[in-house]
Amino acid sequence: MAIAQALDALHALLGERCSISKSERDLHGRSESHFPPMPPDAVVWPETTAEVRQIVRICATEGCPVIGWGAGTSLEGHGLAVQGGVVVDFAHMNRVLEIRQADMDVTVQPGVTREALNEELRATGLFFPVDPGANATLGGMAMTRASGTTTVRYGSMRDNVLALEVVLADGRVIRTGTRARKSAAGYDLTALMVGSEGTLGLVTELTLRLSGIPEATSAGICAFPDMGSAVNAVIETIQMGIPMARIEFACAETARAFTAYAGVEMAEAPHLMVEFHGAPDSVAQNAERFAEIVADHGGAPFRWSTREEERRALWALRHAGYYAILASRPGARALVTDICVPISRLAQAMAETQADIAASPLPGPILGHVGDGNFHAVLMIDEAVPAELDEAKRLAQRMAERALRLGGTCTGEHGIGMGKTGLMAAEHGAGWDVMGQLKTALDPQNLMNPGKLVPGN
Amino acid sequence: MAIAQALDALHALLGERCSISKSERDLHGRSESHFPPMPPDAVVWPETTAEVRQIVRICATEGCPVIGWGAGTSLEGHGLAVQGGVVVDFAHMNRVLEIRQADMDVTVQPGVTREALNEELRATGLFFPVDPGANATLGGMAMTRASGTTTVRYGSMRDNVLALEVVLADGRVIRTGTRARKSAAGYDLTALMVGSEGTLGLVTELTLRLSGIPEATSAGICAFPDMGSAVNAVIETIQMGIPMARIEFACAETARAFTAYAGVEMAEAPHLMVEFHGAPDSVAQNAERFAEIVADHGGAPFRWSTREEERRALWALRHAGYYAILASRPGARALVTDICVPISRLAQAMAETQADIAASPLPGPILGHVGDGNFHAVLMIDEAVPAELDEAKRLAQRMAERALRLGGTCTGEHGIGMGKTGLMAAEHGAGWDVMGQLKTALDPQNLMNPGKLVPGN
Ligand SMILES: Cc1cc2nc3c(=O)[nH]c(=O)nc-3n(C[C@H](O)[C@H](O)[C@H](O)COP(=O)(O)OP(=O)(O)OC[C@H]3O[C@@H](n4cnc5c(N)ncnc54)[C@H](O)[C@@H]3O)c2cc1C
Ligand SMILES: Cc1cc2nc3c(=O)[nH]c(=O)nc-3n(C[C@H](O)[C@H](O)[C@H](O)COP(=O)(O)OP(=O)(O)OC[C@H]3O[C@@H](n4cnc5c(N)ncnc54)[C@H](O)[C@@H]3O)c2cc1C
Repeated sequence: MAIAQALDALHALLGERCSISKSERDLHGRSESHFPPMPPDAVVWPETTAEVRQIVRICATEGCPVIGWGAGTSLEGHGLAVQGGVVVDFAHMNRVLEIRQADMDVTVQPGVTREALNEELRATGLFFPVDPGANATLGGMAMTRASGTTTVRYGSMRDNVLALEVVLADGRVIRTGTRARKSAAGYDLTALMVGSEGTLGLVTELTLRLSGIPEATSAGICAFPDMGSAVNAVIETIQMGIPMARIEFACAETARAFTAYAGVEMAEAPHLMVEFHGAPDSVAQNAERFAEIVADHGGAPFRWSTREEERRALWALRHAGYYAILASRPGARALVTDICVPISRLAQAMAETQADIAASPLPGPILGHVGDGNFHAVLMIDEAVPAELDEAKRLAQRMAERALRLGGTCTGEHGIGMGKTGLMAAEHGAGWDVMGQLKTALDPQNLMNPGKLVPGN
Repeated sequence: MAIAQALDALHALLGERCSISKSERDLHGRSESHFPPMPPDAVVWPETTAEVRQIVRICATEGCPVIGWGAGTSLEGHGLAVQGGVVVDFAHMNRVLEIRQADMDVTVQPGVTREALNEELRATGLFFPVDPGANATLGGMAMTRASGTTTVRYGSMRDNVLALEVVLADGRVIRTGTRARKSAAGYDLTALMVGSEGTLGLVTELTLRLSGIPEATSAGICAFPDMGSAVNAVIETIQMGIPMARIEFACAETARAFTAYAGVEMAEAPHLMVEFHGAPDSVAQNAERFAEIVADHGGAPFRWSTREEERRALWALRHAGYYAILASRPGARALVTDICVPISRLAQAMAETQADIAASPLPGPILGHVGDGNFHAVLMIDEAVPAELDEAKRLAQRMAERALRLGGTCTGEHGIGMGKTGLMAAEHGAGWDVMGQLKTALDPQNLMNPGKLVPGN
């Protein structure tokens, strides 16, 4: 590899938008979770697809790894430069290019954040529904196949990306998909790219489906005597066909962390946070029906409101969940598990997970998108104590194996990165080798985000 | 290629379930549309995944093409043996393996038909929503990424296949996906396989999402003074956010064909056929709101009903559309176009298409799934007159180019097969080469349904 030559060429191309400063390399060499820092050799900030293409060509010529970078919020060390190389930060490619109200779609550059996009859409009556909590970029979200609190109603990035522009490892630029709502025109390259974690190419443009802002919204929260009754209330709500827009679980420990972190007063008990979208009478009716189910499962009265500020406060609280939990063990780093199981197995999966954690010395509050069968345990560790990371990994491994046994997946939304490659063979069998073959076909030099997702890394 | 050796080995393996009779070869060598017959060298009927695997291994060893076969209803010559070889007919693999009511999913063998599946589901309160009209198999529907009348509400096969079992070209058996409702565990192999038209492997098992049978259904039909007003009524219905379960267009000529074919009495005018699903009061309300939109666009009174038999009659009529149209020109074969455009461009696309057809000597009634922006012109030709096929191809080419210009796709649901490979470069650019690379990676001998979908065939 001739990193030095690549850096020279990148400097010549980008000037100050290519940096080898320690501070930038450090900033782009760490992750939100427990992985040790692995800084790249340089960070670049392209402004156009043409520049991205030139960057990739230079790196391909010199055999230098190329790693995309959105907001850096991914949780499995996705963006770490395990073999060095160049991080391509999309912060300067952050324009909303075209909003098409009549077609309810939008074209954006990859560095646009979820919040910035929804801000721009405000006047249109439309919004982009995928909501991973963190203020991630659309490029990063597409690459991890992100989902979140609203997925139970609006789907994940898989369902909301219509088309992509991608710069491939050899510098070719392709456009996958069109603005048509459906197509049978050959292999679904859009779906292949979504969730590929930057290992097949760099995304330089996205066309996304939008949704209409609901006429009315009702949202509320309630406590349950135990986790089982909360989960059973969720299952019953789904089976009754009550259309939820969000339904989130937070365990007693998470509630305690919220109280301490956010100054709210929550009973130290498992909670559900719920939202309904629709016509005014239907959101009221759904909230009432849900309140009955809650009561049937021994929950505290379901307090709900259609007021915007209360609703905002509720979801701001939910979105602070990870940081509230982390703050409950000062100085801790986290390993966040992410299993997703068929809804009929959710109660079992959560109960067994909680029992596992209770039997372990590590704290591991549980929260999650239970309407999808997806939940997280935030396993908190002291980085200075290697045995704690080992224990967290052991717990995570057991959870993942349990998820697979129950017909589920080791990761509902966070992805593989470098953290979950060890589970891929168990989940996919020979399918993982197939992923490796596809990777080799499109990136024979293994330059696009090496060390992630595929075998042999 | 040593077809003879392959046939000997297949006979030894399958006995009578391997046929080289002329009648079977002919039956499996023709298509529903205008392509000339291309029979395979043999037809086999496997009963298990293990047998499929052995069949593929034998064919791989002998370099013999392998072509999957469901109900043979695809419209682009998908199943024709352009290079000879063996057709694998999944008619004996037609069991519903497991219905999981609580998880609203089902596992089936590929030869199960849509109607048979819904028959089996009847007692469960659930149904499988994708409805291409023809009584296709689930395997075939997955392979063409089928959609249909209900896609506007329930999505296409892309959205309703959770997991697959696939026998690859080298005989490896992979399972893609899980029963979890979402996953971020690596490349989306399920989505890559859905729509791959048997060019990447044979599907031997499918796990599908089910939907709850709606509490109530209202459906109806109405005539419009002209196509433009019908289409504008559709667009307004979408923009008002009225949730349709189906919204189908039939042109005046199609209405005339219905009258002649099915003995119904329809005005010789463009029609919309519409259905709403939901709670009893909401389906009534939606039908009323739609009736107002119809009136605003000069439509005849929208007659609707919640009665099951009327509803069934309506959709039986719609599903007979293709045959009703064909019957209007006795002895004709059809080239069926299938463009899909963003909804804001639908009126323009349909008007220009109709003008094109009006200026041509060929009859070409128009009907389609207008809620998705997808419509078909059934261009009827006399096979004995080559100039007619040329003219149909010219029209189809213009329509496809128009669709691409308007931001759409050359095929919303029928797929590529051998009929639309000539449009792939225009639609996908270098993306089509990427499809070829993926194909080569997984099927280097080009044995899985050669001559279809990818370049160089
Ligand atoms: C508090 C918190 C809560 C979270 N909650 C959720 C949640 O509910 N649901 C969920 O899905 N995730 C969640 N996450 C994880 C994270 O937010 C998502 O993974 C998100 O999609 C990452 O987006 P990003 O912009 O930060 O991407 P990054 O972390 O910057 O990058 C993610 C991956 O994509 C690649 N990449 C980024 N941009 C491009 C590009 N343009 N082209 C090619 N490759 C690129 C990177 O190389 C990397 O592999 C959470 C994280 C935190 C910290
Ligand atoms: C009257 C009529 C109306 C139609 N309307 C619609 C519509 O509204 N929407 C729509 O999407 N389509 C429609 N079609 C087209 C057709 O019904 C669909 O393409 C359908 O999905 C084909 O299913 P099949 O079982 O007939 O597959 P086949 O035609 O038998 O096969 C289709 C393709 O899949 C492959 N294949 C089949 N089974 C397997 C398997 N198990 N493993 C691997 N490969 C396999 C074949 O090799 C072939 O390439 C219509 C067709 C007709 C005749």
